[in-house]
Amino acid sequence: MNKKEIDILNVKEDIINENDENAAAFRKELTEKGVYLLNLMGSPGAGKTSTLLKTIEALKGDYRIGVMEADVDSDVDAKTISETGVKVIQLHTGGSCHMDSAMTKQGVEGLGIEDLDVVILENIGNLVCPAEFDVGAARKATILSVPEGDDKPLKYPLMFQVTDVLLINKIDAMPVFDFSMDKLKDNLKNLNKDISIFPISAATGEGVDEWTRWLKADIETWRKNK
Amino acid sequence: MNKKEIDILNVKEDIINENDENAAAFRKELTEKGVYLLNLMGSPGAGKTSTLLKTIEALKGDYRIGVMEADVDSDVDAKTISETGVKVIQLHTGGSCHMDSAMTKQGVEGLGIEDLDVVILENIGNLVCPAEFDVGAARKATILSVPEGDDKPLKYPLMFQVTDVLLINKIDAMPVFDFSMDKLKDNLKNLNKDISIFPISAATGEGVDEWTRWLKADIETWRKNK
Repeated sequence: MNKKEIDILNVKEDIINENDENAAAFRKELTEKGVYLLNLMGSPGAGKTSTLLKTIEALKGDYRIGVMEADVDSDVDAKTISETGVKVIQLHTGGSCHMDSAMTKQGVEGLGIEDLDVVILENIGNLVCPAEFDVGAARKATILSVPEGDDKPLKYPLMFQVTDVLLINKIDAMPVFDFSMDKLKDNLKNLNKDISIFPISAATGEGVDEWTRWLKADIETWRKNK
Repeated sequence: MNKKEIDILNVKEDIINENDENAAAFRKELTEKGVYLLNLMGSPGAGKTSTLLKTIEALKGDYRIGVMEADVDSDVDAKTISETGVKVIQLHTGGSCHMDSAMTKQGVEGLGIEDLDVVILENIGNLVCPAEFDVGAARKATILSVPEGDDKPLKYPLMFQVTDVLLINKIDAMPVFDFSMDKLKDNLKNLNKDISIFPISAATGEGVDEWTRWLKADIETWRKNK
């Protein structure tokens, strides 16, 4: 694929509202095909794309990776990701603030997964809608960045309830902002006891090793249990 | 109102989808009552509440202010705002990622506006859905914070198209982040030629005077023309 020519696919929501059933069937299909799908979520500007870049760098020696960049508009993120050499497709949601499982399935068909081990969906930047829709992923990861504040779990509880792993990004900016890791953990306590938390800086690379080690181990565990 | 006892109102979406008509009628009603409604939007953690605190401080000598805090959950923002002594109500959207005009009208009725000049709605933290719903406000303001990045108008174009004024918050963090005001303006060029831009820091107070002077002038112009 030419690095500047990005495939753009307009994906359509499931209007019959059978998302949960479709998601379960789609997850089964991906499992049978041996493709681990990660649903990466977070606010606009939390650092999803730059974290993705570091994650691809750490994983691409071990796995054949594909990326689906979901956006309301533009293809800037897909262009950035394509520079890494991994397979990438830009999905446009037509104004929708989330991806559902039907849209994700359309994306996977557009991307083509026969030669892939791991697919990462960068969801729409949003802490509300994406939390409400199971896309059929093996795992959900959410990025919260330090400048957003440690009170976000109180305001957007569902996102922090449903996610499996939480990356706290931009920890290099910690001295500039009033962010307390203890307060964050306190705010998460009643929402999600099993959550794994990784403080990282996608800019400096700090903490990225711990996160990608966890991810690799999770992919291996998933492969064994599938 | 006791400073710790916050009124919480569960607001319900207009399911008949007549939002535009309802918004126009509601705007007319507010205009007749002489109440200037500002719809304040932005991502989670962009600094809506802290900017609101500075704005209230600058305006409360001249106007009787009311605030509606819209959230999916929690009442932390309403509690913070109530410390300023202005009238405040917490609105819960029942999972919805935006306020529509019906919900805003319910909020205004719950708040009570007979003794108010200016009402500020702090919308749900989100760059997608709130852009799609006219709530009947006199003016729309959007906050974009420096850590979110200068590329956000490309990814969430509708928000930057519909807003009247754009506050660039957390400019005190400019040295830590790769944010270019020129790039931002370039990204806005084809979306919104009439937009007013104010770089501010709600933390240090920098630029807040310019923004609140603009807001006061706008309220006065609106009063003369209504």
